[in-house]
Amino acid sequence: MVAKDTFHDNVKTALEKDGWTITHDPLYLRIELVQIYIDLGAEKIIAAEKESQKIAVEVKSFLAPSTISEFHTALGQFINYRCALAESEPERILYLAVSLNAQTTFFQQRFIQTVIQSASVKLLVFDPTNDSIVRWIN
Amino acid sequence: MVAKDTFHDNVKTALEKDGWTITHDPLYLRIELVQIYIDLGAEKIIAAEKESQKIAVEVKSFLAPSTISEFHTALGQFINYRCALAESEPERILYLAVSLNAQTTFFQQRFIQTVIQSASVKLLVFDPTNDSIVRWIN
Repeated sequence: MVAKDTFHDNVKTALEKDGWTITHDPLYLRIELVQIYIDLGAEKIIAAEKESQKIAVEVKSFLAPSTISEFHTALGQFINYRCALAESEPERILYLAVSLNAQTTFFQQRFIQTVIQSASVKLLVFDPTNDSIVRWIN
Repeated sequence: MVAKDTFHDNVKTALEKDGWTITHDPLYLRIELVQIYIDLGAEKIIAAEKESQKIAVEVKSFLAPSTISEFHTALGQFINYRCALAESEPERILYLAVSLNAQTTFFQQRFIQTVIQSASVKLLVFDPTNDSIVRWIN
């Protein structure tokens, strides 16, 4: 298990304010010898459907000196986690949580958008200044 | 640019012994603000076709305490590098170079094989004890 991301608690609070119940912190998955810890697991009852929606959220601050290195790791984690969830909890949807600042700068680059779209990475954009969710990009 | 992998020179020698000419060490790509350094670029003349085959090779030792963490990063790098090459040098084929030891242990796990196959990661398996190429897995 690695250290929590700088914005871990901001995202947790933002989800709770948005009506989500944090069910896992972290969400642990084990597939054979591979052990995976996704930052957060959350659940929300969708009243209209009388069903609960489940998500898993990996938080990345993108505050490291090399943003592209952090992106390599984030992308690899996302793909491995999604593959692991597909086996163990196919109904749970995985999001990569990125700050509004990262989303409006680094993630606006055409090349990064190309990668995000081709790998079908879902983003949860949050504002760490007021612990709120800005948008979900599916 | 990050530090060279432990087995960088072993892979370089293995490629040369196999008839490849090392053309880049590292292979630098720039797409807008994103700068990428792939460990090696190499070329080989295929006599029968009178054409040269070009490859890019990212070397990963998988000697880190957390193999899965190293795999997250390797997978993310591979996908980003492949995407960058598709734009700048579509004829150059990307390989992830892994040691025979890593390939016969970590990479044999079913979950890891599932990820490798679903992400179409091509592997170059090398033996660092005698600097030789063991096999190409396309």
